Amino acid sequence: MGQTIVEKIFAAHRRDTPTPENIILDLDVVMCHEITTPIAVTDLEARGMDRVFDPDKIKVVIDHVTPAKDSKTATQGKILRDWARRQNIRDFFDIGRNGVCHALFPEKGFIRPGYTVIMGDSHTCTHGAFGAFAAGVGTTDLEVGILKGVCSFRLPRTIKVEINGKLPAGVYAKDVILYIIKTITVNGATDRVLEFAGPVVDAMSMEARMTLCNMAIEAGATCGICPPDKTTAEYLWPFIQNDYATVDQAAADFRQWHSDPDAAYEQVLEFDVSTLAPQVTFGFKPDEVKDITAMEGVPVDQIYIGSCTNGRIEDLREAAKVLKGRRIADQVRGILSPATPKVYNQAMEEGLLKIFQEAGFCVTNPTCGACLGMSNGVLAEGEVCASTTNRNFNGRMGKGGIVHLMSPLSAAAAAVAGKITDPRPLLV
Amino acid sequence: MGQTIVEKIFAAHRRDTPTPENIILDLDVVMCHEITTPIAVTDLEARGMDRVFDPDKIKVVIDHVTPAKDSKTATQGKILRDWARRQNIRDFFDIGRNGVCHALFPEKGFIRPGYTVIMGDSHTCTHGAFGAFAAGVGTTDLEVGILKGVCSFRLPRTIKVEINGKLPAGVYAKDVILYIIKTITVNGATDRVLEFAGPVVDAMSMEARMTLCNMAIEAGATCGICPPDKTTAEYLWPFIQNDYATVDQAAADFRQWHSDPDAAYEQVLEFDVSTLAPQVTFGFKPDEVKDITAMEGVPVDQIYIGSCTNGRIEDLREAAKVLKGRRIADQVRGILSPATPKVYNQAMEEGLLKIFQEAGFCVTNPTCGACLGMSNGVLAEGEVCASTTNRNFNGRMGKGGIVHLMSPLSAAAAAVAGKITDPRPLLV
Repeated sequence: MGQTIVEKIFAAHRRDTPTPENIILDLDVVMCHEITTPIAVTDLEARGMDRVFDPDKIKVVIDHVTPAKDSKTATQGKILRDWARRQNIRDFFDIGRNGVCHALFPEKGFIRPGYTVIMGDSHTCTHGAFGAFAAGVGTTDLEVGILKGVCSFRLPRTIKVEINGKLPAGVYAKDVILYIIKTITVNGATDRVLEFAGPVVDAMSMEARMTLCNMAIEAGATCGICPPDKTTAEYLWPFIQNDYATVDQAAADFRQWHSDPDAAYEQVLEFDVSTLAPQVTFGFKPDEVKDITAMEGVPVDQIYIGSCTNGRIEDLREAAKVLKGRRIADQVRGILSPATPKVYNQAMEEGLLKIFQEAGFCVTNPTCGACLGMSNGVLAEGEVCASTTNRNFNGRMGKGGIVHLMSPLSAAAAAVAGKITDPRPLLV
Repeated sequence: MGQTIVEKIFAAHRRDTPTPENIILDLDVVMCHEITTPIAVTDLEARGMDRVFDPDKIKVVIDHVTPAKDSKTATQGKILRDWARRQNIRDFFDIGRNGVCHALFPEKGFIRPGYTVIMGDSHTCTHGAFGAFAAGVGTTDLEVGILKGVCSFRLPRTIKVEINGKLPAGVYAKDVILYIIKTITVNGATDRVLEFAGPVVDAMSMEARMTLCNMAIEAGATCGICPPDKTTAEYLWPFIQNDYATVDQAAADFRQWHSDPDAAYEQVLEFDVSTLAPQVTFGFKPDEVKDITAMEGVPVDQIYIGSCTNGRIEDLREAAKVLKGRRIADQVRGILSPATPKVYNQAMEEGLLKIFQEAGFCVTNPTCGACLGMSNGVLAEGEVCASTTNRNFNGRMGKGGIVHLMSPLSAAAAAVAGKITDPRPLLV
């Protein structure tokens, strides 16, 4: 009987099995940001356990509210900063070097195929795009991870999601994952891993795969995961070039983290995306999804392009296709938050920031607080946002605000039209 | 007996004199931002007086906390936005088009020599750089201004500040005004106008004059003011070219807003700045000022370059002279907030944003909230900031934080050194 990717990763990292249900895994990376880690750090300190298992395996960033918006967030940053210095954590990304954790850490080469990764953040599943097992955890698990470098999991069953066909113009990974969540529902993959495979995934960039895996949690999944391949090896090449002779050799080695042909999946779902339309959410759950044509004309107040879901360079490029030479509607405001300094600088070099600004967008520093109503784009009561983020929960981007999730292209089109609109006619 | 500039402006705008002490002036511009105007607007509405005296003379911007950081600030923005639409105020600068009021409004040509200007903001005195009488007011005055286009003032006496000599390399308007405030003290010009004149002022750009006038309030002054001249006319030329045949003709016309040679000043102060050193504040009052050499070595945690005092293109250029090809110290964080979209775009075109970023600075969207601990750079307890802003009050940039005011060049030098340092050796 063969194994799935995640079964292989669990087998390779199993430290202990105290009960048949609980597997204690060795961790390759513990990631930290300023919203959830200060609580853990302060508690460890109070318990006389101000230690870390390995400073080189802990990666720390201030990303949700940056620069600090008030004394509370300034203090959160300071706790993290002081801790990183005290514990000799070299990979601490302070203001000026910081970006959205789920975009920044992959960019720095911290995530590799076969890795185990935890963070006190629900969208940690993003890193499954590299063929890693990456899961969001609570404060207690985070504390244990920081202290001991281990985390207890049940072996999750895997749902294979095979994505066939070819993505039409104007349709992206974001549309695909919204459509998948609509099908699976918000708790359809609870305690499961979503393994994304098939020709559409194989053809996707790492950025697109990260978008796909990022929203696995919105179907309840512990982790999303993609088989690592040559695209993965190319992305990671600057960081692995001393370990392999060629990219192809790296890609071949990564095949150890593929599911076996006879692996046992709990379920196999097949999607053909060849005729998929751009997707958009309605209501307050990420599985409340429609073709964008069915939402045509819904007025919006704000457009937000950014976040761990869609703040990467490809996302900016796609949005810029629609914004170039156009102005956003008078009655709306547009906010672009590039995910990392690298994305920001690349967008500046490529002239994308100029396109966004000339279109009337505000370009913030790299951050993601708007997504959860924490900074840089909070909605007022009754306001509607076309957003590239990952959650349309009631009040998510501000109390009384309404969020429609969509791709960067669709969001850019909404900015120009001042309402939800099919972006495809704007592409020609 | 001749008149001072301000006496001429008062004479030309006098609507009524209900008592010998109170002069009611017609207003040319009422400026509004999202921190103080929503209270006024909401109150007017509650009193059944939801009107404006002239929508074209009201200029509105969201600048202190933008994009919104929480529900409260989102609501402040919404109140302003809804009001501007309702009252047909065309010059409303929403997110994406917005910048720091005291930099944005001059840039848009809204301020002219001889104008009367009020705003619910203490640094309204900035606009005196154009030879206007511009004063910060409280909510009641703001309401009356919005409703009736008038404001009551006592005729302020004028202190003439004659600035002689020639500014040495590495010394700027910021250093001059800090030195002047040190001399005058924080209440030495209370209820007075500070009229800046002399060869150094004549040689200053409009940006530098704005820095000078901006901090007049820190000596207690109602307004700072500079005689409008060819430099003023050149700055305003895009907005006045239909009114005058040439820049020289405009400058000649502006001379009507110069003090007469025999004007009666309450006091004339003379400064020679030829040997002035870069200045920096200590303590918690803007008149606690020393030569930077006396503060050499004081460690800093954060560097903030921006605000209505020093977030203009010249300020960025000066700071970039030191930052180019250098990295900020490991233990500090740098924040640049360009004052307006125009400044931001110009800095991008000139490669300045790249220099700041490569040096390790975070570049925010145009905003100024850090200056008063409202957004984008709030200090934690015990943290020290080298800042180009205008107030070093206790906790101004965050409770328990310490602020040292200085020029953009000195702030950039502090970023590189990780401590307060004389910037002049870095210029060579």
